[in-house]
Amino acid sequence: MKLDKLVGDRFKDRPSECSVDSHALMVRGGYCKYVANGIFSSYMPLKRVTRKIEQIMREEMDAIDGQEVQFPVVMPASLWQESGRYESIGKELMRFSDRNDSPLVLGMTHEEAAVHLVKDYAQSYAKYPFMIYQIQTKFRDEARPRAGLIRVREFTMKDAYSFHTSQEDLEKYYDRCYEAYEKIYARCGVPEVIAVKSDSGMMGGSISHEFMLLTPIGEDSIAICTECDYRANVEAADNISDIERDAVSNELTMVHTPGKESIEEVCEFLNTQAVNSCKAVIYQRNADDKYIVLFIRGDLEANETKITNFLGCDIHPGVVTEESGLCAGFCGPVDIIKDAIVLFDSSLKGRNNLVCGANKTEYHYTGLDMDRDVQGADYHDFAKIQEGGICPKCKKKAIKVSRGIEVGNIFQLGTKYTTSMDMTYLDSDGKTKHPIMGCYGIGVGRLAAAICEAHHDDYGPIWPMAVAPWQVQLCAMRADDPEVKAFADNLYSELLNKGIEVIYDDRQVSAGVMFSDADLIGAPVRAIVSPRNLKENVVELTTRDKSLKTKVSTENIVEEIVKLVKEML
Amino acid sequence: MKLDKLVGDRFKDRPSECSVDSHALMVRGGYCKYVANGIFSSYMPLKRVTRKIEQIMREEMDAIDGQEVQFPVVMPASLWQESGRYESIGKELMRFSDRNDSPLVLGMTHEEAAVHLVKDYAQSYAKYPFMIYQIQTKFRDEARPRAGLIRVREFTMKDAYSFHTSQEDLEKYYDRCYEAYEKIYARCGVPEVIAVKSDSGMMGGSISHEFMLLTPIGEDSIAICTECDYRANVEAADNISDIERDAVSNELTMVHTPGKESIEEVCEFLNTQAVNSCKAVIYQRNADDKYIVLFIRGDLEANETKITNFLGCDIHPGVVTEESGLCAGFCGPVDIIKDAIVLFDSSLKGRNNLVCGANKTEYHYTGLDMDRDVQGADYHDFAKIQEGGICPKCKKKAIKVSRGIEVGNIFQLGTKYTTSMDMTYLDSDGKTKHPIMGCYGIGVGRLAAAICEAHHDDYGPIWPMAVAPWQVQLCAMRADDPEVKAFADNLYSELLNKGIEVIYDDRQVSAGVMFSDADLIGAPVRAIVSPRNLKENVVELTTRDKSLKTKVSTENIVEEIVKLVKEML
Repeated sequence: MKLDKLVGDRFKDRPSECSVDSHALMVRGGYCKYVANGIFSSYMPLKRVTRKIEQIMREEMDAIDGQEVQFPVVMPASLWQESGRYESIGKELMRFSDRNDSPLVLGMTHEEAAVHLVKDYAQSYAKYPFMIYQIQTKFRDEARPRAGLIRVREFTMKDAYSFHTSQEDLEKYYDRCYEAYEKIYARCGVPEVIAVKSDSGMMGGSISHEFMLLTPIGEDSIAICTECDYRANVEAADNISDIERDAVSNELTMVHTPGKESIEEVCEFLNTQAVNSCKAVIYQRNADDKYIVLFIRGDLEANETKITNFLGCDIHPGVVTEESGLCAGFCGPVDIIKDAIVLFDSSLKGRNNLVCGANKTEYHYTGLDMDRDVQGADYHDFAKIQEGGICPKCKKKAIKVSRGIEVGNIFQLGTKYTTSMDMTYLDSDGKTKHPIMGCYGIGVGRLAAAICEAHHDDYGPIWPMAVAPWQVQLCAMRADDPEVKAFADNLYSELLNKGIEVIYDDRQVSAGVMFSDADLIGAPVRAIVSPRNLKENVVELTTRDKSLKTKVSTENIVEEIVKLVKEML
Repeated sequence: MKLDKLVGDRFKDRPSECSVDSHALMVRGGYCKYVANGIFSSYMPLKRVTRKIEQIMREEMDAIDGQEVQFPVVMPASLWQESGRYESIGKELMRFSDRNDSPLVLGMTHEEAAVHLVKDYAQSYAKYPFMIYQIQTKFRDEARPRAGLIRVREFTMKDAYSFHTSQEDLEKYYDRCYEAYEKIYARCGVPEVIAVKSDSGMMGGSISHEFMLLTPIGEDSIAICTECDYRANVEAADNISDIERDAVSNELTMVHTPGKESIEEVCEFLNTQAVNSCKAVIYQRNADDKYIVLFIRGDLEANETKITNFLGCDIHPGVVTEESGLCAGFCGPVDIIKDAIVLFDSSLKGRNNLVCGANKTEYHYTGLDMDRDVQGADYHDFAKIQEGGICPKCKKKAIKVSRGIEVGNIFQLGTKYTTSMDMTYLDSDGKTKHPIMGCYGIGVGRLAAAICEAHHDDYGPIWPMAVAPWQVQLCAMRADDPEVKAFADNLYSELLNKGIEVIYDDRQVSAGVMFSDADLIGAPVRAIVSPRNLKENVVELTTRDKSLKTKVSTENIVEEIVKLVKEML
């Protein structure tokens, strides 16, 4: 490819609308163009990156016996009604009607379509296990698209679905897929991606993992144990509390705490610590605004995902009105109103000598003893694990919380979809059963952006060789010099003949423009032909990551480049 | 791939809902599954065929300097409002709104998105020409999806857009693309696809061609000259009339024609031929139901496309009411009502001694002389060319009309989109101008179905090697025989090692089942390992098209298969 004909603008200034580096560099480098909120077009360099990522995914899915298929982008609503998700999923699912008023949806994931495709086929146990996958456009009407290609509405995804006759077989395949994912990230140049235990959310099922690229701009918080291999999304990490009760319980005493509403203020006022308090966090159920009051240790944060999963319904932060019967800022577990759903976090279990609200304006209790004063309370884990928290696996206080971008996920779905959509098979024991499913997804554009996020400098992406839009950038400095032009033209065609992907810049522009464009394109290898170099019979050879800067004789340059590209692949 | 794990059912009986062979075979062979009206999922065999077609298209587009990009499936309505097509296109354009009530559309073609992508970039003449293309899902809410994958609502399309600074440059590129298309069809195994002149329809622009695979099940009628190279869609073919006026004009005479409403009845009654009559064909304008009366020679058919293009608006067949002032069945050009749009086909120009309606119930005229009785009439070509008609190019009466499936089209768009969307560039003369566009499309699934339509027998598709889902079908007959199994297993892995794509059937099924499945999968080469063959130290080698049936020694079989596959590629 000749750079002078490459469609797309490259420029120096960071666009003000870009909050993350990968987005800024992809806009500056002519990779993508904004079309609408969360919707982008791709120019050739990005298309080349994503096609390479797709091919790597395809090869690894084929290697674990995946069969590439294709589901539609537009699906009849009836398919989603069968599974129940037409009702249960919110506005992310794009719903509309065709010319005959038949309701349709845009695929945001394809479990329903997968079951539909194989339902008639897989009626005997002998057909199992199998896995089908596709690489296809999806649409999710996100409320808040952000960070360029990280969170968009329209995206290309590799999604895979496996079908099994036993949980054991699913788990075996799940592990194979887990390993295939590790290979995909390694081949894409981001072996640092880690798998973390995750919450299954709207997908259903129990065990699931997310693959995370750790970066401060990530949307997810990940709990990582520094002492063992435990890693989980904070949403899914068990929180463990190890504070014992005091030997002696003080009396429950109401104290006047004028103007002290936050737990920090109250504890300071009463000369104690948040860890010795019982805080109320108030939510409301989306469906009917019924109040939910969670009591939790004062220094901990509530984990909404755990509450949602426990209650089986969506919630939102509560708005406490005068009519609610709740005493905003002074809510406590003793004599709390009867018509709220009251939850107790495990961190309070058995604790005593706590400060808590007295359900009376400007009053708190001291000396709360959960066992004595809140009898019959049912404790569950509703807390967010914290930096320095206890590892649920090795039990050491060694949890570190980092930010990450989710670049893939795998789920053990169980029979959620095969039951709701009534997919069955005849087992070897003559019984009719529902097959067990797994599903496995990677967003292509997000992975491309994550790779860029992990591998860039101020001047542009530093693409790993396997996913770089071009392997080599050939710069002909002073292409108006006939000798330079002739040599570079020849080098270009020789490299192409050797199967090397070259972007060739023979524009008559300054070295500054030429190199800043090359930095934005991010080809891992750069060859610079210039009058001065040619006088010495050399070509300058560098790598985008600055690890190499050398001069190679004009005689050996083709072989050296071919060798270098192969080494870096 | 092992056949026993291939997801998808194969069966013998033609499904009753399939009107064309390609559809029936693709359902019977486990290629695709109906999801909703005009919406299908693809199983692995079809996905492999379409991916190969896509790769061939990609290579040929790259060879004519195309840059692969990607536009969104979901676009903001505003883009289509800019071009004016949000209003002008009917219900085929799927319109809906997102969670914020922003109006969106599903891309059915991407001229708007293409202009949007390059508008900021291509502001100087020096950036031209260039071509961008994508291979992407599209959705068109067809009123009548039909014929399986031939006319669907959701489809994958390769669409390309070129931009130029002169008509001459566009034409040069248009010719390159025309040739690239011929290469694509040839490489896909259907060199018989022909280019025909076409009507540009909603795309705008003037010159355009469709690529047609001739087959009786085609939706289009194509006029082909048997004497020269003229080929055009009947919609776009000029109709030429060469009937001279009679030397003497009879008098215009009103005659009573009771109960004779059709032109055939009247002509028979008056003892003349339809060719000597002037027939009225009545339409109404969609927008306001205004009447349009076309007068045309009695033996010709009206060409609605020509009328629509001439009037610049959509029309439908007229419903003649009593209030219309039109005299149904007896409409004629003499004293026709004033408030209808009256059109005259060129076939009537200068004619005399014609029969026509008298605008009076049960009365016709004889002796109509267009020059004398319908003065000031403006003649244009509104007629459909007919079998045996005059070739517009060589002027011989050598037109044959055949049916065809459109498997691609190319358009010279002109500045329709760059003007409406205000895309400009600064030319070398310092003037601001609108670039000139071409666009070039091929539907992937339709091409796959057309190839199947052109190359099949009663038992299944006969895929050309370049697009076959697998190159070789390896059949192990009596795989329960350890010798057969061992030999076939070994042959399978040796062929895979040589890079041959093999579908391997080692099921313990009858020869009938094995061969009928192989016929449905349609791999061009078949190798049969059986106890009897092995006794003779041979493997049976056949081709799906039955042109070859031979026995090859077990020693040479790998090399022979590799050679045969290469020859057929």
